[in-house]
Amino acid sequence: MVQFDKKGVTKKSVNISEWYNDAVLRAELADYAPVKGCMVIRPYGYALWESIQSFLDKLIKGKGVQNAYFPIFIPEKFLEKEKEHVEGFSPQLAVVTIAGGEELKERLVVRPTSETVMYDMYKKWTHSWRDLPILINQWNNIVRWEKRTYLFLRTSEFLWQEGHCAHLTPQENMETVLWALHSYEKTYNELMAMYGVAGVKSDSEKFAGGDKTYSFEMLMPDGKALQACTSHDLGQNFAKAFDWTVLDKTGQKIYPWQNSWGFSTRSIGALILAHGDDQGIVLPPNIASIQVVIIPIKLTADILIYCSNLKDDLENDGIRVKVDNRDTKTVGWKFNEWELKGVPIRIELGDNELKSNELTLSRRDDSNKIKIQMSKSKFQIKEILDKIQKSLFEKMKKFTLANTHSVDSYDEFKKIMETTRGFIKALWCENPDCEKKIKEETKATNRILPLDTKEEKGSCIYCKKAARNRWLFAQAY
Amino acid sequence: MVQFDKKGVTKKSVNISEWYNDAVLRAELADYAPVKGCMVIRPYGYALWESIQSFLDKLIKGKGVQNAYFPIFIPEKFLEKEKEHVEGFSPQLAVVTIAGGEELKERLVVRPTSETVMYDMYKKWTHSWRDLPILINQWNNIVRWEKRTYLFLRTSEFLWQEGHCAHLTPQENMETVLWALHSYEKTYNELMAMYGVAGVKSDSEKFAGGDKTYSFEMLMPDGKALQACTSHDLGQNFAKAFDWTVLDKTGQKIYPWQNSWGFSTRSIGALILAHGDDQGIVLPPNIASIQVVIIPIKLTADILIYCSNLKDDLENDGIRVKVDNRDTKTVGWKFNEWELKGVPIRIELGDNELKSNELTLSRRDDSNKIKIQMSKSKFQIKEILDKIQKSLFEKMKKFTLANTHSVDSYDEFKKIMETTRGFIKALWCENPDCEKKIKEETKATNRILPLDTKEEKGSCIYCKKAARNRWLFAQAY
Repeated sequence: MVQFDKKGVTKKSVNISEWYNDAVLRAELADYAPVKGCMVIRPYGYALWESIQSFLDKLIKGKGVQNAYFPIFIPEKFLEKEKEHVEGFSPQLAVVTIAGGEELKERLVVRPTSETVMYDMYKKWTHSWRDLPILINQWNNIVRWEKRTYLFLRTSEFLWQEGHCAHLTPQENMETVLWALHSYEKTYNELMAMYGVAGVKSDSEKFAGGDKTYSFEMLMPDGKALQACTSHDLGQNFAKAFDWTVLDKTGQKIYPWQNSWGFSTRSIGALILAHGDDQGIVLPPNIASIQVVIIPIKLTADILIYCSNLKDDLENDGIRVKVDNRDTKTVGWKFNEWELKGVPIRIELGDNELKSNELTLSRRDDSNKIKIQMSKSKFQIKEILDKIQKSLFEKMKKFTLANTHSVDSYDEFKKIMETTRGFIKALWCENPDCEKKIKEETKATNRILPLDTKEEKGSCIYCKKAARNRWLFAQAY
Repeated sequence: MVQFDKKGVTKKSVNISEWYNDAVLRAELADYAPVKGCMVIRPYGYALWESIQSFLDKLIKGKGVQNAYFPIFIPEKFLEKEKEHVEGFSPQLAVVTIAGGEELKERLVVRPTSETVMYDMYKKWTHSWRDLPILINQWNNIVRWEKRTYLFLRTSEFLWQEGHCAHLTPQENMETVLWALHSYEKTYNELMAMYGVAGVKSDSEKFAGGDKTYSFEMLMPDGKALQACTSHDLGQNFAKAFDWTVLDKTGQKIYPWQNSWGFSTRSIGALILAHGDDQGIVLPPNIASIQVVIIPIKLTADILIYCSNLKDDLENDGIRVKVDNRDTKTVGWKFNEWELKGVPIRIELGDNELKSNELTLSRRDDSNKIKIQMSKSKFQIKEILDKIQKSLFEKMKKFTLANTHSVDSYDEFKKIMETTRGFIKALWCENPDCEKKIKEETKATNRILPLDTKEEKGSCIYCKKAARNRWLFAQAY
């Protein structure tokens, strides 16, 4: 294990919340902004968001959904058109009351989500079934007021994409809802090496104004769940609120069926929590902006040329490489720095390596050292990057499954929530009162009904009345 | 010339301002938002912004500048730290006074530009010369209140990138200022086929809080100038306002030298104004999201397969192609539609083409029709796209040069501004009073001192006192 200044860095196993803040700050992913509740995403953190954008945008465009941009300001009266919607978002709104030196006659809300301002335009643009489906997405910033900042995980402003589609039939609509959920699952699994469970929310946990909310829930190392993204079936609610109809093929007016789905910078917080360790953050190779860091042991011409050639060789094969040849920092300092920053593979290059034509690689995820022949380096490094990616995913999956308990006794439910926490699968009668009581007594909320659930015959874990579905419960971030 | 419904479409030569609105709306580039002063960028318009982002982001990253994200809200007191800065932006601010259901103790401004919120963080992150240069850019949304919307050209909210770098020396700082300006020039020239003139602004036209502002000025078809982007040398002004120092190599405290530079969605307005014609917008191939549209004359299996094969063949060669095989629209309607939307090349495919193995291409820019052999199509189409790109640039350059007048008599100056307008190059003594009088009397503002200007010995066009530089004047958007 390398030595480094642990001043101010808490161990993950001791206090995950303090560890998280330290790890994010020291890796220079983000910082606290001078505005309460807000954050600054620093270049090393923003590069993760760019990786996500690039991966997810391809999936979105592949579905035929097009990017657009709608205004950040929403007239207050728009939000009020959908009753549940305005009630859900009101407590978190930021409101512009002065603009251009004058008090505004109509107050403007900074978008907490864009349903209302988008659907007003959709109404203007569509008249017949020929104009549907309408498939639009935007990458933008969102404001939902928070008093305490939890970097990436809870901030007054965050970045996301919000997809908003409208269809002629509920079947097509549902197909898009599930496509979005699966695209998010793919992004987590393949890009971010993160395992989770997809499912549908109970009515009390769904999106304000929607019919059904689907989400992808992940188990964090402290046994708490994190809602990693959402995809909403909005039914015809907003179409009705905006009195938006189109003519169908028979000439009848119908309300379009709508959906919306979002994936935010919150995902980066989940990534850090899930994979990090006592030495700092750990990045899966596919999302890492630097996959391999090469550190010259001495800054001699021979060694620097060797480093530079190795970099070129690896880059030609599509590997993202950095040579850290700063003359203002020691080798030891650099080791610590790149460990804190979670770069998947570190290579040290000195006179010995030059002579032996052999490289020593250090894996960030398991601290193993691997010797490889220089001549085969690019093939072997690609292989090792793939292994790291798979290994991180498997580790998270194994942890999640080991901490998912199928429970039929409420005493056991309570005991688990008081000790190790984790996911609990339990039968629930679908009465909101039971859900509420469970939350009050155990702090565990109903997360989702997993999509792969099979119906059972049994009794509710709380009230013992008949229940047929085994829902997922957990304490949540 | 194809026939199409001209209802509501004004001729460009008759009323360019009405033509512009019609052209933008009918091409579905953008629409008016329900919030005064704001716009919606529709998918076909947003695709242009994505082309710009992709082109410019490569140049930015190539310079070693990294993307990041800073909050949209700026505490009001931050703006007040730089006197000129707050005076310049105050009349256009949107202010959040209520958030999370409470009146804020400290009012928050929606960013009109991010100097102040960024430099407060830079101060926190840097302590010695080792921490410089700091090279950061962000792609985001900006609010500067406007009462009247002019789609893309003047909106309360717009999208842009803002680069903010800080250096140890004024020389390095100036190098970045000019690099940014030349990157913008390259984007206009090579991606957008637009010609313009690079230069430095006079003191009365510079950025509020900066030392010098460089811009790229373009001549629009109505003889008015459009400021197409800016790059500011901020000197040490903001560093001093924020009391931000770092230790130099000798251990002395110094104020870093700073610059900022921005390129916005306004550029899309300039693109449409410059290249469009009476039939709608005209897109240069390099920025067009669809470079070639293929329209099947009949929707038979034979023809559709032929269209699809041609599309695949062209796409394999990197050409962006759309087959418009909608069965809800007529061929004539499609011709009009893609003409309005400015797609560089249209190909019609019917039985004749199948038999003859010959294609007929219609160029959008000059309405010429070209027959080519199917077997050579992809090479020839690439060539034609290149020709269109060059031809649009040359046309704009020719127009600008033909309407740039070197003038030494104030009577002639006034006469030109009352008739054809255009760029006027005139000697000016650099006294702001003359600049002001010229503006009052002719509506022409001082645009820039072109970078390639050579000093002369002469007298000011207004006051006749000694003058050595020939500045560029024009009425401006």
